[in-house]
Amino acid sequence: MVPSSLENFFNCKSIAVVGASNTKGKIGYDVLNNIINAGFKGEIYPINLKAEEIMGLKCYKKLTDIDGNIDLMVLIVPSNSIPAIMEQAGQKGIRAGVIISGGFREAGNLELEQEVLNIARKHSIRLLGPNCQGLSYTPNKLCASWPLINTEGSMGVISQSGTVAAQIGIWAQEEGLGVSSIVSLGNKVDVNEIDLIDYYDSDNKTEVISLYIEGVGDGRKFIDTLKKCHKPVVILKPGRTKEGRKAVVTHTDSIAGFSEVFEGICRQYGFINAHNIRELYDFSKAFAYMKRPSGNKVLIITSSGGSGALATDECIEAGLCMANLSAEVKQELKVNLPGHCVINNPFDLTGDANAPMYKYVIESVAKEDIDIIYVIFGDPLPEVAEIIIDLKQKVRQELVICYLGGGDVQKRETLKMHKNGIPVFPTPERAAAVLKKLLNYKKGDIHG
Amino acid sequence: MVPSSLENFFNCKSIAVVGASNTKGKIGYDVLNNIINAGFKGEIYPINLKAEEIMGLKCYKKLTDIDGNIDLMVLIVPSNSIPAIMEQAGQKGIRAGVIISGGFREAGNLELEQEVLNIARKHSIRLLGPNCQGLSYTPNKLCASWPLINTEGSMGVISQSGTVAAQIGIWAQEEGLGVSSIVSLGNKVDVNEIDLIDYYDSDNKTEVISLYIEGVGDGRKFIDTLKKCHKPVVILKPGRTKEGRKAVVTHTDSIAGFSEVFEGICRQYGFINAHNIRELYDFSKAFAYMKRPSGNKVLIITSSGGSGALATDECIEAGLCMANLSAEVKQELKVNLPGHCVINNPFDLTGDANAPMYKYVIESVAKEDIDIIYVIFGDPLPEVAEIIIDLKQKVRQELVICYLGGGDVQKRETLKMHKNGIPVFPTPERAAAVLKKLLNYKKGDIHG
Repeated sequence: MVPSSLENFFNCKSIAVVGASNTKGKIGYDVLNNIINAGFKGEIYPINLKAEEIMGLKCYKKLTDIDGNIDLMVLIVPSNSIPAIMEQAGQKGIRAGVIISGGFREAGNLELEQEVLNIARKHSIRLLGPNCQGLSYTPNKLCASWPLINTEGSMGVISQSGTVAAQIGIWAQEEGLGVSSIVSLGNKVDVNEIDLIDYYDSDNKTEVISLYIEGVGDGRKFIDTLKKCHKPVVILKPGRTKEGRKAVVTHTDSIAGFSEVFEGICRQYGFINAHNIRELYDFSKAFAYMKRPSGNKVLIITSSGGSGALATDECIEAGLCMANLSAEVKQELKVNLPGHCVINNPFDLTGDANAPMYKYVIESVAKEDIDIIYVIFGDPLPEVAEIIIDLKQKVRQELVICYLGGGDVQKRETLKMHKNGIPVFPTPERAAAVLKKLLNYKKGDIHG
Repeated sequence: MVPSSLENFFNCKSIAVVGASNTKGKIGYDVLNNIINAGFKGEIYPINLKAEEIMGLKCYKKLTDIDGNIDLMVLIVPSNSIPAIMEQAGQKGIRAGVIISGGFREAGNLELEQEVLNIARKHSIRLLGPNCQGLSYTPNKLCASWPLINTEGSMGVISQSGTVAAQIGIWAQEEGLGVSSIVSLGNKVDVNEIDLIDYYDSDNKTEVISLYIEGVGDGRKFIDTLKKCHKPVVILKPGRTKEGRKAVVTHTDSIAGFSEVFEGICRQYGFINAHNIRELYDFSKAFAYMKRPSGNKVLIITSSGGSGALATDECIEAGLCMANLSAEVKQELKVNLPGHCVINNPFDLTGDANAPMYKYVIESVAKEDIDIIYVIFGDPLPEVAEIIIDLKQKVRQELVICYLGGGDVQKRETLKMHKNGIPVFPTPERAAAVLKKLLNYKKGDIHG
């Protein structure tokens, strides 16, 4: 069980899809379709007992009919047919398999699951799943999963829920940020969160690890792995309530006891605890692309007085403190800005603000005793992305960007910033929440 | 100051846009363009000193050059030119004006603002603004504001921040729910939140009032108006912190003292207090389209075990209680559903759930001792909207719908439910948060 055996999953050069289908709406259709449409460059072998050809690819009846080498197999077939397929895979020398099919432990068929595991061990096949939603790894243009996720980014997602993984992937894709990888764990008969944290930790495409986990087999080893991990790990774990723990036990047969101590462990060791799916995404986005601010003194610059006031409440409640501008800088700004601008904190450029005004103010205040410059774009403000992309390199302060009320212009500008690795948050409270997490991060440097 | 004088704003049959512009990017362009594109059926008169024609409409030099009647004028011109225009409006017999232009009290020009108000009073002209983002009223296809909001819905928005109003409108538009109306208050020289709450209260297109307010002139009258209002009012008010109150005073010259007692007043009188813009939107959406559940016993039905576990934590933390199914109903469901379904609470149909399975379960549990059926669709599940639209009429329980991880299928199904007045929430925590607010609502029936 050497970690490098996971290479066959992530950097496979050939894939067999057992149970590939020509029928829209079937998982065997979606998975093959997504492997093709994500742009996978290696060989793709559909396997189906009846079809001659699927999506223009020659179809095979069984794994052993294929001449070429197969790095990874994806199984989407009834669970009781899987032991025989595993034996063929062993004959064929396949070393990695994803079992998407359900019908194992989660359906009461523990024996079948054990049988599959035994065959895998006999043939040295690493297994992901069963009962999982597959995996994607964008650097290899691999999406053996659904929905189609193919935008390259820095978040490595590990999830015990296919739906949670899918939603994180969808948000990352919609926002143009992308992911490095998504792995759905399923029943974790073999490959588990510990293997994957180790893999992502040494993967240079991954900057942050996003983990949705219900239970862990070996709590001590899990904690040790997290402690050793060099990259920030954001964790969402249900089971905060007694009823939630009961639901977790039912869903994945996880040990409930660990849930009760989990939040305490996060606090103790400085792991990043997310309270819900949205936070799992937002915190991952922040830790993938932002740095820990040098302190908690924030200056809010806005074109929307209302958003500035809301952001102020959120910042104070997040433990930040409002920075003061020096009299000299205030005077300088007063001379050069329209008379109706509010030179204060929040710094309100008001409704007729534009990109150059933001640029001027950010450059002017960068020399002040401020740790965080919190920029809020309210209403459609074009060409602000270029300003921020430029200033991000120049100012020593951490910039956090919020953009709201801007409709299509906002979408365009946000996408530009995201393409340049600058995260944009859509409401004042979400920007403040990530600042709080970044400031409270205790586990050494975020990047490197 | 009779309330009916606001009819000229909402149900105007003719509009003059003073300061209409042919130049893209100018507010005078956007406002005229949006009035046209929202599909306004009445007369539209652009006024511009230099142009002969704007967007295909004949252009006038001044209000008094127009032959026809003018119900509403929208002013987007330098502030110092406004007194003269107000005098012309008086001559022309105009009774309602929106002053979008800034440059008044907020810029230190209190005298100019007072002068404009005096002229308005002399000629019995009601004024919205100045320094505001205009108004929209979808039943009259009126959008004298930006961005373009023209989807008809049930939320009436009143906002002291143009950006907050715009963002609420954008979300409502994107989600296909729409609004009845959005009014940006600006400096509130005349028309204020009290006038508008009264107007919306008697407007049969408005089911919920969404209010972003920084300060009120007459706190006692404001509270009395809210108490008398027959419709739910969701309120977002910054100023929870000392620093937030300072920001509010700077932004709109509002009295800070009221902020300190505000949350207590909401609790005391049962007004719906939102903590941030997202909650203002979500709670408005819930109170516009949902009813107060008869009790707090919830059954969660899901296709995603992970989402079900997360929702359980959120429900318990929101003060709900997990309902129990009777042995008879459990037995009946067990016989008719696939063996891997988890017949419990959360009720997990697992990954191969489909619309008919949801329908069967919801119908079966409707006879049980349950107040709320919390339905979670995880992953792309087609044709679930039709099921929910049908069952909404039939089951006595309040249905709350969450849909996540479904990508394009989710968007399509959500839109169908929204078009039928059934709100869909995109994460378990947001659905639980609205349930908490609905249950805690004390002010009589939500609708009627």
